[in-house]
Amino acid sequence: MTSLSDPSLPGFPDILAAAARIAPHAHATPVLRSRGLDALAGCELHFKAEHLQRAGAFKFRGACNAVFALDDAQASAGVVTHSSGNHGAALALAAQLRGIACHVVVPEGALRSKLAAIEAYGATLHHCAPTIAAREARCAEMQRDTGATLVHPYTDPRVIAGQGTAALELLNAVPGLDLLVAPVGGGGLSSGTALAAATRAPQCRVIGAEPSGAAETRDSLQRGVRVTEFTPDTICDGLRGTLGEPNFQLLRALAVQVLTVDDRDTRTAMRLIWQRTKQLVEPSSAIALAAVLAHRDVFAGRRVGIILSGGNVDLDALPLFADQRLSTWEQKP
Amino acid sequence: MTSLSDPSLPGFPDILAAAARIAPHAHATPVLRSRGLDALAGCELHFKAEHLQRAGAFKFRGACNAVFALDDAQASAGVVTHSSGNHGAALALAAQLRGIACHVVVPEGALRSKLAAIEAYGATLHHCAPTIAAREARCAEMQRDTGATLVHPYTDPRVIAGQGTAALELLNAVPGLDLLVAPVGGGGLSSGTALAAATRAPQCRVIGAEPSGAAETRDSLQRGVRVTEFTPDTICDGLRGTLGEPNFQLLRALAVQVLTVDDRDTRTAMRLIWQRTKQLVEPSSAIALAAVLAHRDVFAGRRVGIILSGGNVDLDALPLFADQRLSTWEQKP
Repeated sequence: MTSLSDPSLPGFPDILAAAARIAPHAHATPVLRSRGLDALAGCELHFKAEHLQRAGAFKFRGACNAVFALDDAQASAGVVTHSSGNHGAALALAAQLRGIACHVVVPEGALRSKLAAIEAYGATLHHCAPTIAAREARCAEMQRDTGATLVHPYTDPRVIAGQGTAALELLNAVPGLDLLVAPVGGGGLSSGTALAAATRAPQCRVIGAEPSGAAETRDSLQRGVRVTEFTPDTICDGLRGTLGEPNFQLLRALAVQVLTVDDRDTRTAMRLIWQRTKQLVEPSSAIALAAVLAHRDVFAGRRVGIILSGGNVDLDALPLFADQRLSTWEQKP
Repeated sequence: MTSLSDPSLPGFPDILAAAARIAPHAHATPVLRSRGLDALAGCELHFKAEHLQRAGAFKFRGACNAVFALDDAQASAGVVTHSSGNHGAALALAAQLRGIACHVVVPEGALRSKLAAIEAYGATLHHCAPTIAAREARCAEMQRDTGATLVHPYTDPRVIAGQGTAALELLNAVPGLDLLVAPVGGGGLSSGTALAAATRAPQCRVIGAEPSGAAETRDSLQRGVRVTEFTPDTICDGLRGTLGEPNFQLLRALAVQVLTVDDRDTRTAMRLIWQRTKQLVEPSSAIALAAVLAHRDVFAGRRVGIILSGGNVDLDALPLFADQRLSTWEQKP
């Protein structure tokens, strides 16, 4: 196991501190069960319902922790990030709750509905060209001009610690989990989950569920070096980001295993969740159940935690999902 | 107020008995809140989540009460009903739990997905022509041939009492409700709700939400005589049935007010619920919120209970709903 001696990496105490810090603002989300899905999967599934978190995703935990960890002087200059997705809305809400400014840099072409959600929480949008260079330049410009603190969507240690509070709550609520599955994108949720489990439930294995079309985390862990060159091709819009460096270090040190999942299986799992639990989760959430169903041998007969990471489905895109028929997984309940 | 002296009508004690009878089998569903929807509606909304009930709808309460109220001799001959929707699946599950036969008469042309759900719970399907006469003849034939007990979807007093347990739980969980809104189809849920409220919370007004395209309950209450001749035209497939006679008597005696809702408003309300609460409810559920949003003056500033009656959305029909844009109700959260 790689050492975790790097003092810039968050640790378990940071997760405990985050849990206390966000408690007045974040929802302690419920854990859901489904007889039908247990029967289909051949194991015992405990779904941590982060799609019911404020702003519709676990992202609020990390953003809230980052915003409320600022001292008053830092906070007064506001926060800035780049994200056209759930992190943008989460940071906007956290900033609104603290009563400080929030700047969100968004690429041209971002979804109108996502931008509307960010603006609805009172943040200011700043448009840029849809490249990483343009995005980072615009963010640096905002920091320089306003003094705002950058809150990166997944490499910020306060964000990682915040995301770990979801797993902490789940492990506290459901003793004896054998496995815990979290989606993997940039690695904020998965590394926070691994940190929480390593101390709170060391016997519990943490599995990352990653789209086959954006499997740079699996590749990075296999090669022992972070892969940053790849072109994501997946319906899981929340999982297209590039694995961050601290996230890579944590996942490697904590021996997280990554299982890859085809989009076809993610669509089927999403439809199953909608049908059986009536919970409208997004593809980036459903991938965790898809990993269980696509790798049955890993989970057979075990007690499995699943982090349903978010529910911000683009309702205008529903027809794209609705024609996905059930696969052979489907059987009588 | 009309007298409730007819001994064939259920009363509040029957609801208490039903609650005790179904407790080992039915879910005590949660009550959900949404800051965003409260702000949109201008009142305090408490959603009773019956879409999370077993078999996906409140219908399981009535069916379960009817099945477990049978004595062993009656039960051994099984039960029969006609329903291609939620009641069919609910009765099938209740019969499966008691270990008795269940026959469900379904009209030709019924949705495959609904029939699959009924069969998955072990019931036997009997097809008939899509007319009321054919349906009733086939049911009578089944009763004669098998000795099975008919459990009508909404006129059976055991069913009405069972449906009333949802409101009873909500009134117990949320003290001081000013208004309680239930969808109106055949009248099983609305009359059970009115019975529960009349004794448990007499200060609470019960409102029925009925599709404009199937408003025979409003018409019946206005004319003082049950209207049975009408052709339903609504997306609320659970609310197309004809108001039953005992249901009419109860709604009239208990002074339930009916508000009608256009399908367009129901679609918008459904989309709002999906977006804000991540709960996949069906049109026949969403109509209750639509009634609140379309008749704001009735609810302004009040504490309002809403029965989300079911979540059995036909996922193959999602594209039909997805193109419904938000109306002027939509505003920043």
